Amino acid sequence: MIINGLPGDSISANDRGLMYGDGVFRTLLIRQGKPLHWLHHYNKLQHDCDAIGIVCPSVQLLTSELGQLAQSQPESVAKIVITRGPASRGYAPAAKPQITRILSASNIPEYPDTYAAQGIKVHICKLRLGHQPRLAGIKHLNRLENVLAAAEWDDHNIAEGIMLDENEHVIEGTRSNLFLVRDGKLYTPDLSRCGVAGLQRDRVIAYARQQRIVCKVTELEMDDLLAADEIFLVNSVIGLWPVRDIHRFSGKHFPVSLQIQDWLNNGSN
Amino acid sequence: MIINGLPGDSISANDRGLMYGDGVFRTLLIRQGKPLHWLHHYNKLQHDCDAIGIVCPSVQLLTSELGQLAQSQPESVAKIVITRGPASRGYAPAAKPQITRILSASNIPEYPDTYAAQGIKVHICKLRLGHQPRLAGIKHLNRLENVLAAAEWDDHNIAEGIMLDENEHVIEGTRSNLFLVRDGKLYTPDLSRCGVAGLQRDRVIAYARQQRIVCKVTELEMDDLLAADEIFLVNSVIGLWPVRDIHRFSGKHFPVSLQIQDWLNNGSN
Repeated sequence: MIINGLPGDSISANDRGLMYGDGVFRTLLIRQGKPLHWLHHYNKLQHDCDAIGIVCPSVQLLTSELGQLAQSQPESVAKIVITRGPASRGYAPAAKPQITRILSASNIPEYPDTYAAQGIKVHICKLRLGHQPRLAGIKHLNRLENVLAAAEWDDHNIAEGIMLDENEHVIEGTRSNLFLVRDGKLYTPDLSRCGVAGLQRDRVIAYARQQRIVCKVTELEMDDLLAADEIFLVNSVIGLWPVRDIHRFSGKHFPVSLQIQDWLNNGSN
Repeated sequence: MIINGLPGDSISANDRGLMYGDGVFRTLLIRQGKPLHWLHHYNKLQHDCDAIGIVCPSVQLLTSELGQLAQSQPESVAKIVITRGPASRGYAPAAKPQITRILSASNIPEYPDTYAAQGIKVHICKLRLGHQPRLAGIKHLNRLENVLAAAEWDDHNIAEGIMLDENEHVIEGTRSNLFLVRDGKLYTPDLSRCGVAGLQRDRVIAYARQQRIVCKVTELEMDDLLAADEIFLVNSVIGLWPVRDIHRFSGKHFPVSLQIQDWLNNGSN
């Protein structure tokens, strides 16, 4: 882990990243010592910093630090966190904050090969994403919605959860962006009110343009998912996983049903 | 600062409090070495931990650590942060996370005496709070909305900002709860969709009940504020500040106006 340019594994307990989630992040793959799509990631990092009024560290600085990380862990998942730095109490940002940068690498997760080839089973999350246009699309550190959504299932056969918003529109996976295919066209949710606009979403949209495949950014509902020819999820670590099964309900205990069943079968009225 | 029971000033850079804002906090006054309304604060901390599925440290443990803090800084603002602790990548919480507890003390801010006695000037924030019933009322670490709202003004004559929600309902101050008085009755915003339910809000509601003053938790709009006999804000550090002036607009530069003015006065058409 490289923190503000130095090896380390801890940060100030007064950091606004901790106190308020006042920061942004990116997750990317390092393969053969090379950070994949790094400049594209940097552009998105810079965009997200701008959106919350943080001055993004320079591309030279982050490229150099990411290079050190890549050298020591040439096959890894890199995470870059930028926060508004340590500060005394109070929500108002300082005029010239001392930005914190944290670069860490972890092992590339080993997912079953079937996920990418034969598709995954997904859970439809009960949690509904709230709307906040000022933060929509941004990969910021306020991620309690994702945490609560990801805590909804513990079935290891379920590889991801799909999140809807307060208007029952389909928005994204808990850690991925969603596309559906219908009649040869692509559709992906509009993220102007909530959700995170990941890099691979940009790349799929660019690919569609290049291939002259119609790709619409639009409002999607559960019925659109269920009527799709294909659904797939993307992010920088998993790549693309098709969806083979949408898990909406699984009953295990039926106390009320059995009570009513008993009454229906045996009741005297 | 006391971190997990030991003196310290840093935490693991993998802490979920930093990565996701996955935690809750309380802010309270210590006066003459005594934490004010501590058990009430603890109950709220425990409630908020429950709401996001964190096991709250015991009251014995936190009372003891807060006692140490109070001994070394007998006149201070204490902040208690509880997070889901350090973890590897991924939103889903571990089954048995190692909870992080951070207790810190800072100086009691010195506000002008006029704030409490003669009232303050407030700004009406442009940022609108999003709705998230699962997190509403909870003092959690996802506070980017407060940060962005507090960044909206830099006029030192403005002591607090009032936040409305996406439905244009008045909700709270950036760091305080709001009450209004009309015809001898109290009204305070419903916080079931957004906002933070502070301890002093509970105390005001309890006081009203004791004094047989009608106090309604309800939806409030800007027109209700403007028609109020009195408005006041409360939190555990400021106590209660009446509002004397609602600042909605202050023009300083008028380039378009002056251009049109010039045209109106001197234009040839």
